[in-house]
This record gives sequence, C-alpha cells and structure tokens, in this order.
Amino acid sequence: MTYEVKSLNEECGLFGIWGHPQAAQVTYFGLHSLQHRGQEGAGILSNDQGKLLRHRDTGLVSEVFKNPANLEKLTGQAAIGHVRYATAGEASIDNIQPFHFKFYDMEFGLAHNGNLTNTQTLKKELEHSGAIFSSSSDTEILAHLIRRSHNPSFIGKVKEALNTVKGGFAYLVMLEDKLIAALDPNGFRPLSIGKMANGAIVVSSETCAFEVVGAKWIRDVKPGELVVIDKEGIHYDRYTDETQLAICSMEYIYFSRPDSVIHGVNVHTARKNTGRRLAQEFKHKADIVVGVPNSSLSAASGFSEESGLPNEMGLIKNQYTQRTFIQPTRELREQGVRMKLSAVSSIVKGKRVVMVDDSIVRGTTSRRIVQLLREAGAAEVHVAIASPPLAYPCFYGIDIQTRKELIAANHTVEETCEIIGADSLTYLSLDGLIASIGLETDAPNGGLCVAYFDGKYPTPLYDYEEDYRKSLEEKTSFY
Amino acid sequence: MTYEVKSLNEECGLFGIWGHPQAAQVTYFGLHSLQHRGQEGAGILSNDQGKLLRHRDTGLVSEVFKNPANLEKLTGQAAIGHVRYATAGEASIDNIQPFHFKFYDMEFGLAHNGNLTNTQTLKKELEHSGAIFSSSSDTEILAHLIRRSHNPSFIGKVKEALNTVKGGFAYLVMLEDKLIAALDPNGFRPLSIGKMANGAIVVSSETCAFEVVGAKWIRDVKPGELVVIDKEGIHYDRYTDETQLAICSMEYIYFSRPDSVIHGVNVHTARKNTGRRLAQEFKHKADIVVGVPNSSLSAASGFSEESGLPNEMGLIKNQYTQRTFIQPTRELREQGVRMKLSAVSSIVKGKRVVMVDDSIVRGTTSRRIVQLLREAGAAEVHVAIASPPLAYPCFYGIDIQTRKELIAANHTVEETCEIIGADSLTYLSLDGLIASIGLETDAPNGGLCVAYFDGKYPTPLYDYEEDYRKSLEEKTSFY
Amino acid sequence: MTYEVKSLNEECGLFGIWGHPQAAQVTYFGLHSLQHRGQEGAGILSNDQGKLLRHRDTGLVSEVFKNPANLEKLTGQAAIGHVRYATAGEASIDNIQPFHFKFYDMEFGLAHNGNLTNTQTLKKELEHSGAIFSSSSDTEILAHLIRRSHNPSFIGKVKEALNTVKGGFAYLVMLEDKLIAALDPNGFRPLSIGKMANGAIVVSSETCAFEVVGAKWIRDVKPGELVVIDKEGIHYDRYTDETQLAICSMEYIYFSRPDSVIHGVNVHTARKNTGRRLAQEFKHKADIVVGVPNSSLSAASGFSEESGLPNEMGLIKNQYTQRTFIQPTRELREQGVRMKLSAVSSIVKGKRVVMVDDSIVRGTTSRRIVQLLREAGAAEVHVAIASPPLAYPCFYGIDIQTRKELIAANHTVEETCEIIGADSLTYLSLDGLIASIGLETDAPNGGLCVAYFDGKYPTPLYDYEEDYRKSLEEKTSFY
Amino acid sequence: MTYEVKSLNEECGLFGIWGHPQAAQVTYFGLHSLQHRGQEGAGILSNDQGKLLRHRDTGLVSEVFKNPANLEKLTGQAAIGHVRYATAGEASIDNIQPFHFKFYDMEFGLAHNGNLTNTQTLKKELEHSGAIFSSSSDTEILAHLIRRSHNPSFIGKVKEALNTVKGGFAYLVMLEDKLIAALDPNGFRPLSIGKMANGAIVVSSETCAFEVVGAKWIRDVKPGELVVIDKEGIHYDRYTDETQLAICSMEYIYFSRPDSVIHGVNVHTARKNTGRRLAQEFKHKADIVVGVPNSSLSAASGFSEESGLPNEMGLIKNQYTQRTFIQPTRELREQGVRMKLSAVSSIVKGKRVVMVDDSIVRGTTSRRIVQLLREAGAAEVHVAIASPPLAYPCFYGIDIQTRKELIAANHTVEETCEIIGADSLTYLSLDGLIASIGLETDAPNGGLCVAYFDGKYPTPLYDYEEDYRKSLEEKTSFY
Repeated sequence: MTYEVKSLNEECGLFGIWGHPQAAQVTYFGLHSLQHRGQEGAGILSNDQGKLLRHRDTGLVSEVFKNPANLEKLTGQAAIGHVRYATAGEASIDNIQPFHFKFYDMEFGLAHNGNLTNTQTLKKELEHSGAIFSSSSDTEILAHLIRRSHNPSFIGKVKEALNTVKGGFAYLVMLEDKLIAALDPNGFRPLSIGKMANGAIVVSSETCAFEVVGAKWIRDVKPGELVVIDKEGIHYDRYTDETQLAICSMEYIYFSRPDSVIHGVNVHTARKNTGRRLAQEFKHKADIVVGVPNSSLSAASGFSEESGLPNEMGLIKNQYTQRTFIQPTRELREQGVRMKLSAVSSIVKGKRVVMVDDSIVRGTTSRRIVQLLREAGAAEVHVAIASPPLAYPCFYGIDIQTRKELIAANHTVEETCEIIGADSLTYLSLDGLIASIGLETDAPNGGLCVAYFDGKYPTPLYDYEEDYRKSLEEKTSFY
Repeated sequence: MTYEVKSLNEECGLFGIWGHPQAAQVTYFGLHSLQHRGQEGAGILSNDQGKLLRHRDTGLVSEVFKNPANLEKLTGQAAIGHVRYATAGEASIDNIQPFHFKFYDMEFGLAHNGNLTNTQTLKKELEHSGAIFSSSSDTEILAHLIRRSHNPSFIGKVKEALNTVKGGFAYLVMLEDKLIAALDPNGFRPLSIGKMANGAIVVSSETCAFEVVGAKWIRDVKPGELVVIDKEGIHYDRYTDETQLAICSMEYIYFSRPDSVIHGVNVHTARKNTGRRLAQEFKHKADIVVGVPNSSLSAASGFSEESGLPNEMGLIKNQYTQRTFIQPTRELREQGVRMKLSAVSSIVKGKRVVMVDDSIVRGTTSRRIVQLLREAGAAEVHVAIASPPLAYPCFYGIDIQTRKELIAANHTVEETCEIIGADSLTYLSLDGLIASIGLETDAPNGGLCVAYFDGKYPTPLYDYEEDYRKSLEEKTSFY
Repeated sequence: MTYEVKSLNEECGLFGIWGHPQAAQVTYFGLHSLQHRGQEGAGILSNDQGKLLRHRDTGLVSEVFKNPANLEKLTGQAAIGHVRYATAGEASIDNIQPFHFKFYDMEFGLAHNGNLTNTQTLKKELEHSGAIFSSSSDTEILAHLIRRSHNPSFIGKVKEALNTVKGGFAYLVMLEDKLIAALDPNGFRPLSIGKMANGAIVVSSETCAFEVVGAKWIRDVKPGELVVIDKEGIHYDRYTDETQLAICSMEYIYFSRPDSVIHGVNVHTARKNTGRRLAQEFKHKADIVVGVPNSSLSAASGFSEESGLPNEMGLIKNQYTQRTFIQPTRELREQGVRMKLSAVSSIVKGKRVVMVDDSIVRGTTSRRIVQLLREAGAAEVHVAIASPPLAYPCFYGIDIQTRKELIAANHTVEETCEIIGADSLTYLSLDGLIASIGLETDAPNGGLCVAYFDGKYPTPLYDYEEDYRKSLEEKTSFY
Repeated sequence: MTYEVKSLNEECGLFGIWGHPQAAQVTYFGLHSLQHRGQEGAGILSNDQGKLLRHRDTGLVSEVFKNPANLEKLTGQAAIGHVRYATAGEASIDNIQPFHFKFYDMEFGLAHNGNLTNTQTLKKELEHSGAIFSSSSDTEILAHLIRRSHNPSFIGKVKEALNTVKGGFAYLVMLEDKLIAALDPNGFRPLSIGKMANGAIVVSSETCAFEVVGAKWIRDVKPGELVVIDKEGIHYDRYTDETQLAICSMEYIYFSRPDSVIHGVNVHTARKNTGRRLAQEFKHKADIVVGVPNSSLSAASGFSEESGLPNEMGLIKNQYTQRTFIQPTRELREQGVRMKLSAVSSIVKGKRVVMVDDSIVRGTTSRRIVQLLREAGAAEVHVAIASPPLAYPCFYGIDIQTRKELIAANHTVEETCEIIGADSLTYLSLDGLIASIGLETDAPNGGLCVAYFDGKYPTPLYDYEEDYRKSLEEKTSFY
C-alpha cells in the first residue's frame, strides 16, 4: 500500500462515552476526528441497558458505517470506539476492535491503544493452560487475564490484569454498568477525559475529539490510573503507584492532530516551537521556507517567523489521494508521473529552499521531495528536520520495529544528507526538542519518552530484550 | 450533500494527451490532479489506432477506475478525460463526459468545460429539425452542429459549430487521427498545452496536471483558438478573430489549485497578493491571522506577512471528510457536534482574530466559522475576504445561477457583517483584486472577467437575458 | 460467460401496464417472470402524470433494482419494462432499454423485442442527414423515424415509422397520455394483452407474466396491429394489411416458459406433444427416459408417456449456478470437475438411456452430457431431439447469426451422432413439429416460422441477403 | 427473508479433501454442490504444508468467493469447507465456519454439521474455568475440549472430546499433517468418503459432491467412527462402540439432493418409492398429478407411475428468484402478484389435481399453493404428502425447534385439510416411509431417525429435556 508515503504509524485511537442518548453517534464523530491514528479498521460497541452491541469492519470510519443502519442499531447511552492501524499481514476483521467478550454470566467490551512488551510470554502461559485466542492482537490477553483472575470483584480482576501486562497501553473496558479507562504506568499514550453540555462523560486518545463533539476537557488520565465512569459520575482510582511520566514525544512531533492538547501543551504550538528552535540551530543561507504538507506546516511557520524567511507553498498535496488509488507503473513513475505531492515551479525556481519536515524514517520520501524541488528549479535544497535523528525502535505503540528501517541508525548525518541528495541536513537537537515541547514536570527528559532518539528506554523490554540487543550490532546500507 | 461547505462550484476539468503509449493512464493521473474541479463524475476516452474506447461513471476518479480493468482496457496512444461537477438533478451517467459519438462512417469523442448561453435556442432549432439528444448536457449541441454542417472538412465543420455556440467553453475533440482543443472568444476558462519528456503533447484545464505527469508547459490556448494535435505536431489555428481576453477571476480566487499558473500568473502568488492588499485595506486592530483551510491559506499568509501579525493554525480541517459521511442529527449539531472544521481553543483563546477567507456566497459558512472561533474563546473575530462582494450570477461555467443565493446581492456590507456575527467585515476592493492578480495585458479589467462583482458581462447573455433582467429587481432577506 | 451452456438466446422480453397506482412495481414482477428472455440488463420507465421516469442497468431484474429506492422513485400509473439479452461486445448500459427520448416539446419511452433486417440501410440514411445515435441498438432507429416524420399526429408518425422498418419486432411506446403496442406484419415475436382485477391493462411478451401479476388474458396482439391504451381503454388499430402469421417456432421449442400460452397453445403442452411424436418417430430400444433439465422436461414427460418407458431424474442441474461463478480450470475440468449438470449413477447405471433434449446448436453441450451419462455407467445413450435439425440462421430476433455455429448446417445426422458420441440420434420431423404445436390457422407451416429448419424465410432478408447467400456455400468441420 | 417458502432448514454441509494440488478449488466446487444445505455463509480453510489459510463470509459460495483472489490465496494440498444455514439473529461472520484455532505451538481447523444437545452445560463448565468463546456456535466447544484434554496425543484429545459432546454431529478437523472426519454414535448426519482419479481423498456430507468433482464413492463414515486421512492413506478408527444407526429420515424426504446416495440408497429413488407407496395409500379420484417444484418432483413421478395418472407441469417455479428480491407489497399480494410459484391454467383448468408435496410444516405454503391451483381453475385439489405428519421437533441438526410451528402437532389431519383448503389430505404412513426408503440394516425403524413423526428420540435430550416435556402440553391454533 502506498497511501502513506511515510512509514511511521500510530497504533490506534480510542473514544468512549457514558450518559448520552446517542452514544454511538457521538462516538462515530469522535472516532472520525481520530481517524489519523488508524485507517485500517474501526468499530463501535454500545451499551443498551446492559446489553452490548457492536459493529466493526476494515476501512475508514466513514466506510465501516457507510450503511447508516450499522450505526443506528448501536443503541444505548454508552459506547466505546476504536480506529485501528494494522501491519499488512494482520488486516483480518478478527483483529478489529472493540473486542466483545460474551459469557453465560456476563459480557464486556475492550479497546486498546499501545503495545505490550510481554505478549509472547503471557500468551504462551495462557495457551498452555487451555486458553484459545480468537485474534492475533495482544489486546485479547487482558481479557483472558481478567477472566482467569480469582479476585472476587471485576475491578479487582482488572487491576490484577493491568499489573500483569507490561509496555504501553491505554484501555477502555465497557461493562454492563460502567465504563473503565486505564493507562500504563509511564503514560506512553495520551488519554483525556471531557464532559459534554448534557453531562455525558467522554474519554479520548486526543482532545481534538472534544472540540468535534462539543465537550470540555476535564483532565488527562495519569500514569497508573484506573478511571471508573458510571451513573454516579467519575471515580479516579490507581492500580499501581510505581509510575513515571514518559509520554511519547512522537505524539507532539508527528502523530497527534495540531489542535490536540496533551498534558497541557497544544500540539501546533509545540511544533511551531520546534520550528523556531530549529531555525536557531540552522546554519545555512536560504531564501524561502517550504513545509512538507500537512504534518510539517506548523514547524515551517515557526521556522519562518524565527528566521524571517518567507513561508511559501512550494509543495502541494493532492487532497483526493485515497487508498484505492491506482498507482503509476514503474515506467510512468520514471517519466515523472506523481500522485500525492507536487512542487510549484513558479515559487521555488531559482530559490534556496529550506525544506522543513518533522522526521526522517528511511529517507526515501525525503530523497523524493528533494528531487521534486530540484526538478521544479530550486537552486539549493536545505533539509531541516524538526526532531532529532530517529535511530532506535519503539516498543510502546509506534510501528518502528527494527533499526534496519531507520536511516539514522545506519548512517551519519553527513551520509544521510548525501543519500537524500540535499545541500545540507539539519536535525533539531534532543535538548531543543525537550525545551520546545516544554511540559511542566520534574520527570526525566521533561516527561517525554525520547528512546527513539537516544536508545534509553524507560522500562525493561521483556520479550523484546534479546532481539533488541542483537539489532544494535547490525548495520544496513541505504545508499 | 454536505461535502462542500461552500456552495461555489467549478463546472469541470479537462485533460488530453497525444502520442504516449500509456495515454489513458497518464490521463488518469492528470484528471486526479484536476479532481477539485469536479467530484461528481469522471471519464476517459482513448484512441487505439483510430478506434475510440471509453469508460465513465459517477464518483471520484479513483472510484470510477477502482477496478483497474476499466483503465487497462483503454488502450491506445491518445486520450481525453473529464471530471464533472453536476447539480443534483443531473447526476445521471448519461451526462458524464467525454461523450462518444459513433456513425457508420466515423466516430469522435468530445469533452467540455464551461457553459453555453444560447443552449435553449440551439436545442430547440435542432430538435425541430429531427435531432435527438441523449443527455441533458449542453455539450451535445456541438456534436449536432458539427454533424449537420455542410462544410466538407471536419475541421471546417468544427469551426462552423464553434462560431454558432456562445458563452464560456473549452472543448477537447478526439478524432481518429487528431486531437482538437478549442477555447471560447473570451478565454473564460483556462486551457494550457504542455509536452512530456517522451514528446507526448498534453492539454489541461490547469497546469498543475503538468507537474503531476512530468510535462513542461508550452503555452496557454488563446481566446478564439483551435489547436490541432496530430502525428505531425501542434498546429495553432483560429475560428474567429473577434476575441477579447476575460479569464474568470474566480479561477485565481478560489477554483484553481495554488500550484497552477494561468496566463503567466501563479495562483498561490496571486492569492498571497490579494492577502497582502487586503491587509493594506484592512482597518482594524488584531492579534493573529487565521486562514480558513484549505483555500484561504495563501491569502492568510500574504495578509500575515504584510500586517506583521502572526499566521496561526486556529482552524483545523479534518482530512478524512468524505461524501459518504453520516451527518450529525440536528440534536447533535446543536450540542456542538461538528465534522469538518474545528477551532483550536489554545490558539484563539482571548485573541482578536482576523479570519481570512476567499469569498462569501450565502454567508452560512462564514457565520458558522465565526461562531466556532467565538466558542473557542476568540475575543474578537474580524472577517477579511480576499475578493469583492459576490453580487451577480455567472453564465460562463460557475454554478452561481441566481442572485437569490448571494448574500451580497441582497444586503449591504454592514448587514452582512451583522448576519455572520463578526466584529467587522472587510472585502478586498475590485481594483485591489485586479492589481493583485496583475496579468500582463491591455484588456479591460486586466484581462479578467469580474462580472460577479460588478454585473458588467463581457458578452450578450442570449437565452439568460430576460431572467437576468428580472432577477435584478428581486430581493431576499438572509436574516 | 458460461452461464448458458446452450448458445441459443432470445433477444429480450417486454412488459407494459396502464392504469395501476403501483405501475412500476407490477412491471418489476412482470419482468421477473420474463427473466428467462434476457439476463444481461433490465429497465423500467414509468409515467407519472405525463412525466417519464426511468431506471436501467446491467444484470438481472433483482440486481438492477437491488436498491428499493430505484424502484420507488418510478412513480406513476403506467410503465413499460424490458429485459435484455446482449452479445458480449454490447454490454454497455447505453443499450439497455427502455430508451427515453426527451425533446423541448415532448418526451417518449421505447422498448423493443426482435431484430430489424434493414437496420444498416436506415442507419446510414439517417446519419447521412444529421442523426446521432446514442446506442448501437437497432431500437433507436424507430425513434429517429418517428421524430423525422412529417405526419401531423404522433400515431401517424408511428405508423409511418413502422412501415419503414423491416424484420421481427414487438414495440412498446410510452407517451404522456397513452401506451402503444405494435407487432411486425408476421407476428414473429409473441405479444399478449391482459387485464388486472382493478382494471389496469397489461401487455407482455408472454402470458406467464399474467399469472404472476394476477391478470387475465384478453387477446394476443395480431400481426400488423397497433394497439393504443389510454384512459378511454384499448383501441385496436392497424398500420398495414399485408400480414401473414409466422410466429417463431423456437418460442414453443425452447424460449418461452412452459406456463405461457401463445396463440392459444400452452407451451408445456406443445412440448409434451413434441415428446410424444418424437417417441413415435424413435426407432431404438431403451430402458429409461432422461430429460435434460430444465427446458426438456416437458418433452421427456411426453416421450415417456407415449413410449411407456419410465421418466427418470438421471441428470441434476445445480440450482445455485450463477453468472458470478468461478469456473474450473482446464486441469480440474479434465479431472471431471463440473458445476452445472451431474448424472446420477444409481439411476443410469447399466441402463439404455433415451436422453431427450429440445435442440442441438453446436453439439458441444450434447457431447458433454452424453459423456456424463456414459461415465455414470449408462449402457447406451440414445439422443432424441424434440425439434428438427437447426441448420439456418435467424434474422428476426434469435441470436443464431451464422451457419458456422450450427452443427446441422455442416454435418449429416449420422456425422452429428458420431461427433456427440451417442449410440443413436433422432430428430423430430418438421411435419411432426408443426403437427405437435397445432395452431388453429390456415397460414403456411401452421402459422409458424420454421426457417431455421428449412431455410425458407417468410420475408425478404434486406441487409442480410448477401451475407446469407455466401454463407450457404461455406462448410465447417465440427469433428 | 422470503427466499425459502418452506421453513424447514438443514444445518450445514461439509466437504474436505486431502492430496490434491488445487485442494481449495475442488472444495469450492464441492461446496457449490452442497449449497442447498446452507445458504447463509460459506468458508474454506486450506493447508499449505502445515500452514492453515482461510476465507469465509456471509452469502452463497459464489458470493463469498466472488473475488477470485480469495480462492487463489488458499493454496495447499488439503482443505475443508463448510456451507452454513443460520437463524436470523446469528448471521454474524464470527459464526461462519470452518473455524481456525491458532496457538503458539500448533493450529487446527474445524467444521461441523449437526447440533449438540449438551451445549449449555458444557459451555457453562468451560467458561467457569476461564474459557472465552469467540462465537455463539456450539462448534467451538469441541475446540476447547480438545485443547484442555490432558491426553498426550492429539487423536487421543479428539476422542476424549467426542465422547464428551452429545447429539448429532459430523466433524472435519484439519491438522498440520492430517485430516480427521468423525460422526456421532447414531450417524444422524450423512458423511461419505470418496477418491479422485489422481488419488486425492474427499469427504462430503453428500455423495452428489463426488459426481461434481469427479470422485468415486468408497464408503460412508459409520456411527462412532473417527477417520484419519494423511499421506499414508485412510485409517478407520472408533472413539466409541456404543453406536446405533439412526440416520435422519428428512435427508431422504427433503434435504439431500436427488442424486445423492446415503447408506446405499439413492435419494431420488427413495422419493419415487414414497410417491409410489403414497399412491397406494391414496383413496381419492383424480385426473392429474402435479408435484410442487423442485423437491417433490421425484415423489410426483412415482405417484404418477403407480397410479397411472398423468404427471403434469401444473406449477412453475421461477428459476431466477433470489434472496435480494424486492417483495410485493401487501396490496399487490392481495391483487394476486406472486413471485416464486405460478399455476398453469391451461393444464389444471377443470381438472381434479393431486398436488404432491414432500412435507407440511406450518401449512401456510400448502394453503397458498392450493389457492393458486384453485384460482387457475382446478376442479378439486387433493393434497398428498410423501411423509407422515411432522409433529415433533428435531434436536440433532434440523431447524425445527418447537412444536408451536408444526401444524401437525396442533391439529388433526381433518383440521389441517380444512386449514389448507384442500379437498382431501393424505399423509404417507410411517411404515410406508420406512419401507420406501428400505435401508439394509437390522436397526430399529429401518436405521432411520423418525422422531419428528413419532416423538421417540433415539438418545436422551440432555439440556433440551425440560423444555421438550413442557412443549408437549401446549397447543396453538393455526386457523
């Protein structure tokens, strides 16, 4: 699939609601605003007086609910929803969430954003004692742990299960009479709570959903918290006290929508700050700033304001690009046929361009854009990246699994500059990144997880430990 | 249909190619870059050694050719393609172009962008003498005129027909051994010629398609011209000498893609200039500039640079909004559920905002956005429009048919400001518009058609004359 | 397409109704009962107080109207409908009927069953004088002739047009205030009139539709007749007096549904009679009779009753076979994988089987079935065909265009028997056929067209004359 | 859904193959021939060198595999397939088989035909000890029992599980290196083994699939057997010796295809025999025999031969009736609009008709057909049913769950005759049925399960026991 030029993907978005007569519809609009967090599948599970109803399918939210009947049948005053990102091999409908577990004596729904690090160990143990998994998703593990717990209360079972799984996770659990939200001990993934005018409580991976559904932000879920929402209201509880904030810095750099606010910091503002700081660290002469649409427009605007260079629309992204699109043949591609981005000759011709982008993964996209700008007549192309070199994998919920795919794990900045064909290449410093985001916290790295940049993971890696060690010794050439 | 918040629509886009082994595929990518000119239907007609082949359907280009077989069957070295905008009642597949006319002795294909002003008269005359129309499109008229001409040569027949139809038109005609492009005597609609590296000649409504297919611009088709492309190359001919350039100013203001160049002027640059000029004409105090995405971002950037006010991302457009989207119920809408645009509280809160937009049609969208900004905490909202008040209909190819739908045709600027709920409302002056676009020409109005602003039409209105006269006397209240 | 094992296809079915509040719905059910006359496309055109509305598409009636909205929008008290058979190259939606012709001063709908013999000549003449055809169907010719007629009344124009076209035709024409039905001077195609309990008048290619919609048969349309149905009732008129009944004998043999009655003779009864007569003409010893499902079951039953041999279910047809079915690969086919028909070993094993079929076209199907029966253990397979050898093409509406495809045009009965691998091959005699059908008429051949059997056509062949002459001299080997 | 006029449905069909390079394709054709056993869903699971691959969906086999890619991806030399009948509420894709169970150490596929009688008890026990079910199908129980068994070998685990489940079942289990087929201790459901010319072994619910895929029957699976097929060949094993043949008599009467052979008796022949016997037991005067198409044509033919009355095609079934069909409104239905069956006036008019049908469930269909025949002019309608009165539910795999739906459980034969509006009503005697089928066995009831007729179930009813007791005391009126 060539829809995403950038091979950097979030793994999912969550939305939940309690106390609204049209809970599923609100969830639909909430999920729509989280669509950028996962385009491969979506689902909603509603709660109609204790009875759980569900619809899920592959595709965008608008495709999954193309037939209005599929949304209308999800009656009830509470709901949870999920948008899913999936790697190619796992596109089966079985893996699309929310999951719905039914028993002779009760039922519950479950949705998950993140990645567990002790999946393999737990799955083996569970299957060894008779468990059957119906999906290849690590989310299902929590359900088995809950069901097998001997704790007498359901909340007690959930706490026990949350203390067993490791890694990055935000969970929503829908029960007959309550909605539960829980976050991992490091708060790797964002999760916020809001309130609608009619009193309904909403939970979302990003606050942008609150603007869309007309809700006001109340507060973010904290690391190690278990939030229970029922007809009495919101109850804040904890399943562990061993917590340390390490929110994923890529949420600010690339994933989240610019209008979202995470731990008090607006994403657009954070990006604009990275652009400003990058302009300070940038050492070359140039005529204009061109941001790579759409994710780098905020950083480009900050860079422009700080540097005084005009911010121009030198690259245009086709708004109609879709996954179903027929791709140019290799032959046509070589003849210059492109579908997604085009460079504007009349703007870049003869200019020394600062091309601002948020990050470089494999470098292929950067190389292609540099080439586009040169073909359109740019005199020089200086690439400025609003984050440090991405050199280490993520195990908490972003799809960067190996160092082999990361150009910065295998090449110096000079080599990378040569490979992408730029006149210069400037990365934002790690200190610059942390200062630009500027969370109010005493936690290390300003409360951010920056392991992709420095390789220092805030937790043990469990099942991934050995593979990771080995990977540090391997090198691949991107020339 | 709520896909387009703005009820201002272009009527179609054209792309043609001669001399490329994968002509239909290149046309597909060309049409994709013209998708903003029409989303209701698309089609391609190819020429395989004199045999014409066609596929057309309702929907986006990517939907019409979702099944790759439909594109692959369009073999041959030449093709013409069309993207169509349609008013609700005419969504039938019969009206989707290119048309394909087959006779016992020959066949030809035809695609059209624009609107004829003597349709009714001509259709009546033709039907009176036995003609049967297979569509409700005015495009078919040209085919009947060509077929009934007694001129011995096909080119002669086409010239005769072009001198009979009146209004705004760009035509592409595909024959067994040539491709013909023709433009109306005022050049209302844009049409450019380019060349690919392998020598193939391309024709497109906008030059953005040239960047996408890797072609170089050669020159624009001039008013009254008939361009014939065949294996010998390009032949520039004329069917009339009574010409006067009056290119539609809305192409610069709203329709065309920012990376297109029309008659030597880049659209983004023209828009940025309108923003600069608007900043000069603007008389209020403000803190930040916020462009309405996506069409007003260029103007907002010009406004920001000229005024020195920071250009902020205070409005976010959901990239995944699609026509198939389920709409919020009235109840949910009242509770604040929105799908397409959201305002960013953390940016606009407490700020005096200049909201830059390209134009106002009915005012409903403007009112909604002003309200969004206020709800997000904006202290003041000053609306600045990068074009003059839109007060008169267009008869040459834009879907503004009556004065009833135009707020500026029925209310003063002060009234409009009150209706949309803004603190102030500033329109760009007509002189400012003409100067900002700045075509190099001696033609009246700087070579632009600005009739929607001043009611002075560059041609007689023929069949529309009487209705138009009457409409000048009617008023509607938008309160 | 492998849906029809037999390459013998009817060209279309007609249904019309006047005076029913749910005219389109009744037409839908009527067309459904005529589905066997054409499976490639269907359409309905309704008349709502003079305004004509239409929906048509490729596929079965149930597929074309899968979305109930497409049927519901066809409001009004009158309608005409069409089911279409099409040769591969003409599957375009443009050719699907009813056609809908719109003019500035009136509109009409048109549907046609049959084939014209002077199409080429008329099309050439019409196009020469400026006509543009929007389809490759010969049906459109009538519309051009009507529109160009100088006769002052519409009925007069239609009569003039009907006297200009030649060949086999049944037409339905829907006007603002009337429904017209017309039949060719030989009555090649069947067309009957009925009445519903609520007084609505219905017209149908076959009377089976009357049973389905609860109508009573009134009378058949006669050769050369023009029937006008309006709010006053039914008016029987004629456009010519030079008529001679020659109803297509294949309607009785193969095409029509067994429950239809044509010119007073029930189709099942006619087929049973052919089976009885065939049994009399059959000269071999056998144990059981097996009809090829479904078209030959009536003949098999007659054969069994006359011969005293038991009628057994030795061949089973899969009821779920559909056009969308994936076909076995050649390899699987050779291994014996079959989809449509299977022979029942426990019935045919060791038996001398009379395999009764209605006709042989190319012989490939017969050969395959004979082989099936042998593989299932039949001791002998005697093929008995309930019609004479099919040796000449049809030009009046059946898709047998050339002698090359007809085994009986190229081989003797003995050779054919050898090619299909049977122990014996018996055809019904032409006299036997005529006697079995037994119409009450003085017309030649008992009022039947039997030209496919004896090459004596009841009319001149016009545009087909020359090709036909040549074809008589060519031979092809089917070994 | 109105597709099935008769509310009597089989629950599923199975097909398996081992040792064929195109195993999934052969399974596709096999399932196609079993389509009458279930139309709601279908799936195939293939085995490519130990790796299991699957595709399943709702709809007919041809719909599920409409996209050939879904079949082509099922590579490998072995496969199992399933067609599914489902009650309305369970149409979810989660319930469509084959199931595919994956574990860290192995995987297996599972398909099931039949119904367990101790489902509730087993599910409760399993869930109590931590099991999570991913479907509402009773099939999944076997997988949990297998996985939790402590028996060291997989075959041992399967045997243990088979001894735990009760009721009617035929299972196919696909393992990495073998295919297992198993039948319940009473052999309620049919299951046969065959061999293709290339040596591939096939297993099928009905032998009709063998004719279709070109296989030869080897032998039927016996009650209590476990058949293991691997590269060494076929191994016949048993999991219990407490067996007693009681094959479902409805397989002969209604469900199976006429060309299938079950336990040595051809279904068409059995039905013809029931017709013969019914003619002997029939006491009324009549002129013609008319079978209700398609299931009663064999019985009608036997009745005709025995009675000497002609067998006529007095009822015609539309071959194109599909599930997607739009239904007549109540108003149209009252006006006589019908879609599926029509009576042939020219055949039945004035005749005393014996209407032969296989069974009566609720009586609504019979009443409708009797009325059709009377409206078409039948002088008398004598209904003759080729099986005894259906008065008791089935718990082994047929969808007759309650006595409330059975007219014969609530009314005498005389009352039923009155309700359906017939002149007389004759049921075949139970002895007549058993004699007509005539299995070679010493088992009670000639080896048949006839509990639906006499209420004597060959096994305990387990979880159904109590409900059944209660139902015996309830009565419903069908007047």
